[in-house]
Amino acid sequence: MTELETAMGMIIDVFARYSGANGNDQSLTKAQLKVLMEKELPCFLQSGRETDAVDKLLKDLDTNGDAKVDFNEFIVFVAALTSACHKYFQQAGPK
Amino acid sequence: MTELETAMGMIIDVFARYSGANGNDQSLTKAQLKVLMEKELPCFLQSGRETDAVDKLLKDLDTNGDAKVDFNEFIVFVAALTSACHKYFQQAGPK
Repeated sequence: MTELETAMGMIIDVFARYSGANGNDQSLTKAQLKVLMEKELPCFLQSGRETDAVDKLLKDLDTNGDAKVDFNEFIVFVAALTSACHKYFQQAGPK
Repeated sequence: MTELETAMGMIIDVFARYSGANGNDQSLTKAQLKVLMEKELPCFLQSGRETDAVDKLLKDLDTNGDAKVDFNEFIVFVAALTSACHKYFQQAGPK
């Protein structure tokens, strides 16, 4: 696999790992989203009131309003976050 | 770094590697997009008329109309492709 294919596969793997406990329902519940954020993006939720932050994140990501985060909702979040990281490194890098 | 952070970093790296020849202009020209697709997603452009396929892809991705693909345009493409792969594996997987 190429580097880009590997990266895409890793994102699919991460989502499957944390949403896996639901059987055929491949969506993240709020509790699963919280564990994923704590384990995979530990710097993202820095607030002392972590539950509030997860509540807000779920509300922001859950565009179809089923109180869960499906893969399409998750990948939009990953894309936005990657874009923000790219912008940050671009600004921080050599001029 | 966690697996998700690593995957996000790999996507940023891939884009930087293929757009790197432009100095500060961090966008992919059509020629650079073609090389990236050939090297990183060799199964995507399978048509015999590869230049036409790259032309069409560039036109689809280039939402701001500058005839290049910037990182935000690229990550939208990667997200859409990852989502399509996820759907494919979900359907192909065990019921």
